[in-house]
Amino acid sequence: MGLNKESGIKIGLGTPGPRNLITDVPGVKVGHVTVRDGADINTGVTAILPHEGNLFQDKVMAASCVINGFGKTMGLVQVEELGTIETPIVMTNTLSIGTAANALIKYMLQQNEDIGVKTGTVNPLVCECNDGTLNDIRGLHITEEHVFQALANCGEEFEEGVVGSGTGMCCLGLKGGIGSASRIVKLDDKEYTVGALVMSNFGGAGRLMIDGRQMGREIKARLEAQQDKGSIIMLIATDVPLSERQLKRVARRAGVGLARTGSYYGNGSGDIAIAFTTANRVPHYSKTAVMDMKMISDNKIDGVFDATAEAVEEAIISSLYHAETTTGRAGKVKYGLRDFL
Amino acid sequence: MGLNKESGIKIGLGTPGPRNLITDVPGVKVGHVTVRDGADINTGVTAILPHEGNLFQDKVMAASCVINGFGKTMGLVQVEELGTIETPIVMTNTLSIGTAANALIKYMLQQNEDIGVKTGTVNPLVCECNDGTLNDIRGLHITEEHVFQALANCGEEFEEGVVGSGTGMCCLGLKGGIGSASRIVKLDDKEYTVGALVMSNFGGAGRLMIDGRQMGREIKARLEAQQDKGSIIMLIATDVPLSERQLKRVARRAGVGLARTGSYYGNGSGDIAIAFTTANRVPHYSKTAVMDMKMISDNKIDGVFDATAEAVEEAIISSLYHAETTTGRAGKVKYGLRDFL
Amino acid sequence: MGLNKESGIKIGLGTPGPRNLITDVPGVKVGHVTVRDGADINTGVTAILPHEGNLFQDKVMAASCVINGFGKTMGLVQVEELGTIETPIVMTNTLSIGTAANALIKYMLQQNEDIGVKTGTVNPLVCECNDGTLNDIRGLHITEEHVFQALANCGEEFEEGVVGSGTGMCCLGLKGGIGSASRIVKLDDKEYTVGALVMSNFGGAGRLMIDGRQMGREIKARLEAQQDKGSIIMLIATDVPLSERQLKRVARRAGVGLARTGSYYGNGSGDIAIAFTTANRVPHYSKTAVMDMKMISDNKIDGVFDATAEAVEEAIISSLYHAETTTGRAGKVKYGLRDFL
Amino acid sequence: MGLNKESGIKIGLGTPGPRNLITDVPGVKVGHVTVRDGADINTGVTAILPHEGNLFQDKVMAASCVINGFGKTMGLVQVEELGTIETPIVMTNTLSIGTAANALIKYMLQQNEDIGVKTGTVNPLVCECNDGTLNDIRGLHITEEHVFQALANCGEEFEEGVVGSGTGMCCLGLKGGIGSASRIVKLDDKEYTVGALVMSNFGGAGRLMIDGRQMGREIKARLEAQQDKGSIIMLIATDVPLSERQLKRVARRAGVGLARTGSYYGNGSGDIAIAFTTANRVPHYSKTAVMDMKMISDNKIDGVFDATAEAVEEAIISSLYHAETTTGRAGKVKYGLRDFL
Repeated sequence: MGLNKESGIKIGLGTPGPRNLITDVPGVKVGHVTVRDGADINTGVTAILPHEGNLFQDKVMAASCVINGFGKTMGLVQVEELGTIETPIVMTNTLSIGTAANALIKYMLQQNEDIGVKTGTVNPLVCECNDGTLNDIRGLHITEEHVFQALANCGEEFEEGVVGSGTGMCCLGLKGGIGSASRIVKLDDKEYTVGALVMSNFGGAGRLMIDGRQMGREIKARLEAQQDKGSIIMLIATDVPLSERQLKRVARRAGVGLARTGSYYGNGSGDIAIAFTTANRVPHYSKTAVMDMKMISDNKIDGVFDATAEAVEEAIISSLYHAETTTGRAGKVKYGLRDFL
Repeated sequence: MGLNKESGIKIGLGTPGPRNLITDVPGVKVGHVTVRDGADINTGVTAILPHEGNLFQDKVMAASCVINGFGKTMGLVQVEELGTIETPIVMTNTLSIGTAANALIKYMLQQNEDIGVKTGTVNPLVCECNDGTLNDIRGLHITEEHVFQALANCGEEFEEGVVGSGTGMCCLGLKGGIGSASRIVKLDDKEYTVGALVMSNFGGAGRLMIDGRQMGREIKARLEAQQDKGSIIMLIATDVPLSERQLKRVARRAGVGLARTGSYYGNGSGDIAIAFTTANRVPHYSKTAVMDMKMISDNKIDGVFDATAEAVEEAIISSLYHAETTTGRAGKVKYGLRDFL
Repeated sequence: MGLNKESGIKIGLGTPGPRNLITDVPGVKVGHVTVRDGADINTGVTAILPHEGNLFQDKVMAASCVINGFGKTMGLVQVEELGTIETPIVMTNTLSIGTAANALIKYMLQQNEDIGVKTGTVNPLVCECNDGTLNDIRGLHITEEHVFQALANCGEEFEEGVVGSGTGMCCLGLKGGIGSASRIVKLDDKEYTVGALVMSNFGGAGRLMIDGRQMGREIKARLEAQQDKGSIIMLIATDVPLSERQLKRVARRAGVGLARTGSYYGNGSGDIAIAFTTANRVPHYSKTAVMDMKMISDNKIDGVFDATAEAVEEAIISSLYHAETTTGRAGKVKYGLRDFL
Repeated sequence: MGLNKESGIKIGLGTPGPRNLITDVPGVKVGHVTVRDGADINTGVTAILPHEGNLFQDKVMAASCVINGFGKTMGLVQVEELGTIETPIVMTNTLSIGTAANALIKYMLQQNEDIGVKTGTVNPLVCECNDGTLNDIRGLHITEEHVFQALANCGEEFEEGVVGSGTGMCCLGLKGGIGSASRIVKLDDKEYTVGALVMSNFGGAGRLMIDGRQMGREIKARLEAQQDKGSIIMLIATDVPLSERQLKRVARRAGVGLARTGSYYGNGSGDIAIAFTTANRVPHYSKTAVMDMKMISDNKIDGVFDATAEAVEEAIISSLYHAETTTGRAGKVKYGLRDFL
């Protein structure tokens, strides 16, 4: 449920939406499958539906920003060229991207009998972080069935912290995982929403900042040094009408929120942001060549930028706040942020 | 007047517009100033107006593609970020870009009293090639007045060949210069136009291809070897409604036309393409945050790509066809293509 | 064996290496698995080894150029960020990329016990085209075992045409597939090699150009119209010492060769070029922070650009020349180029 | 002069060089010309010499990162393509880039008689911010002579704050200007330096953060709201051997420091970072085709990233700290940060 008042933490100056989750953007849904055996297996899958309909037939406009490309996210080549997302977004551990792609392809083939026969193929969008510190990642424990379950579990309410693809993730020397937040933006006297969902797995111990407070320096002595070989996936959803170029600008602002939590975009971190809008839909089969779309004046985009930076920053802090202390592979322990508050 | 029937040359399979010039796109105008002294000075300025109104107040949507970046074109950083052109496009020789920028800034300040006071600044778009083979480029013979004249000379009819900024240019071992062409594209049973204007100054002797014919190999023995240190500017105008992302895709296809005339994008060549559409206008002061725009389905864009590749290819050949044999700096001679036909 | 003299076809002006294949670059190997059932299944896998050692421990310097990004190639995000390739390159059909990734990950895990435990993960590089015209692509007939076999089959000699991942590919209205070529480049009086390998699956009927000759126009009436929904993968290997920036420049010149064969980079075509050099190796574990590398002066790079454009152009023509007329899914027939020579 | 102990401000955890200026990188020099008339004219020029020799003959390896491209910086197209800087870097106000380019071209022509005759042209690198709030920018008060003077004034010691091109700049609701800082990085037991120089002109009132402290929120009530239409130029110099790809990665980390001071990369802000290394020189005339260069293992680059983020962050704070309260055009006042400490 995002960072609530009980947490005592407030990030920035903006106004969150009712859930303070990415699902405050109408139509967006999130689902998890957590895969744990109480010992070395600590991993999972998280799926995001940009809208509830047939995504292949009715694509959402999108763009990405590779802030640091030490990552294996697949699907971005086509997102950049065509400016659309045409499948759910699936997140999992790094070595399971092939399995996730297979599952996503089968899921799309089942929904769309035209793919590969009457029309072209489909572009699975799979994001990943390396959960090898707490998970037996070499064991390849994610199955296609897990991906189908995560997709089936998608809803407007979802858990944060040690759950889904965030199960084995570590961040800033602490236990990381899934976090989310949202912000309200006013344009032409109408309210819109910017939502963020992150899988946090980046950063060095001692670097954590919370709304400016150098918390990492305070608690560093109590943490084990963390190799900065993680990653972060930052998904931004909005119902503000934006062009592909504007969505790319928005995705770039995820790096602002990331920097404010203590990252310097470490070499070993795959820092990937993907932004989509539900307000511009692109049909797979367009009746006419010329289509109407909407965008906002760039002169009015600052509120969207500000909301994006804040929502990503808060989603990261929320991922830490909701993460419990976790014992993983080979008995390795990562502490939850709440142990230090 | 483009490549007419008398030339005996036909490029590709498409249909040219009535003038077979970039000015077949309604509203686009072109003007030249040629600066020659009969000896070492062989240079000039060419200006392109994307439309006839106030470009700062009513910008055209645009994108660029840097095919090879050994060039000094200025203004592209902002074109890429904001997806708009807000001044005329000025072309001149490489060492005169500062003077051209100064003139363009003054021209814009005069037209817009708000610039730099009530609103931000302005982004002059200046393109260049190195005419140092035939022109005393170190002499810096272009003045601000030349730029103002080129802007004042803009009209729908304009010369090609050894004129304006093309005066001193060399291409594929021959005399280069200004060339233009257009193609008609049908979408939803409506006719649109894609127009190209090039300043050709690239390529090695012996490489020229005309609609596939390896003309360069035939005439190579009669040409002096050319150092491939030139450049080419390729401007594409259209009235097809395109998004910024789509305009970037269109700009990239300029490289197809370029390759088909004999270029391999040589190291020393600044090969720059800029595409704009007159169909999506972006107001400097928008009354509302949300604006309507139009784009085409990417499924229907192939005709625009094909037209772009062909128009650029033909514009390059037209620049050669219209160029007379020219004697320049230090008595150096570059032959016109017609001497070999 | 590339395009030999018997073919009667000569592309460009350069000198091929002894095999006229990508494997003229010392250390490079190629292997195929062809998967056909005599009816609807017409697909396969092709693997390329940049060198014979442990690629994860001893990476090759690399870069890519997305000429048109309607494609699902995976691994490019990291290639761009780190400038290295650390696995074999695997090519297959579009819907089998997940399976290919899984196989490549397992292959790498087996060779490297440190991955995912003592060090980070690994970036599988998988390229694809859509062979759905001739292959039952929805049937997902590629298995991980096929990928292992293709890797095991790698050698210096390999077949072209209807083989490996090229089995079901179509190109320019004809039967496409695998093609290769090489060119010799002299620098400082030493001979180097530029090699290209393509999987050709792009372009419209009637567009084929062979060294300028508008062959497509001649034979168009005899061909079925082809939907331009293909793709082309263009791999460039060299032993010229190049920096990552220079390799990106080289990869961009693949688009020259592509354009000269008749492509205008169609909307539906994933046109991807990847270039690597065996002359700059990047160790996974470097003993020192500062490492020596070599690059060439950009003033001397034109020969490499020219060789790249020509080798890619010839590799495409070679893929057509070696492809026999093939009957595929639902009895669909694609003719081989030799039927028209 | 950087931020000394007397300031009471400490940014981050790293160790500054002896001057805590960009000129701690051996060979780098900085010079200013301040242009003020006590009334509406408040502008200037700042020049940076990457080394003391002939930059055209002996270029430094470089790369850039356009964090937000609402800016007119010229020269980046070629920096990106060739990976080199071949002139001094000149900073001035937005509408004076043409004049600065002219001066820089003349300066280079004078030093190099081969330019434009025996060899190609030269790529002037001119950066800008809009000082229109405090300066009569429409008056075009910068002359070529000012640029020559700034170049002549270059030395290892230089002023920060309201000086040179920073004279009229505003930042985060306060008076901005020129700031600099440096950090020591150890690699293979050898000490290297990363230096930053910024021209700060970005950000909204109330956003300022100093090493995490939300200073802006504390002082916002005392500041006038600032239109976020500024820009920031961030130059990073180092003697660490880096490739062009690595320099681009370094330049991207400037955005971390920028974000930590309170920017969300506002729409109207041209946020441009340029990084160069003095350790890899590229000769204009190379005797051999193959050249030796050095780079570091990306596994060891985190120290350089961290140093870059911190040096840029501190340089911005230093630009504010050294800026005195300034009265400019039409009597407009911008307060210095020290008034609030």
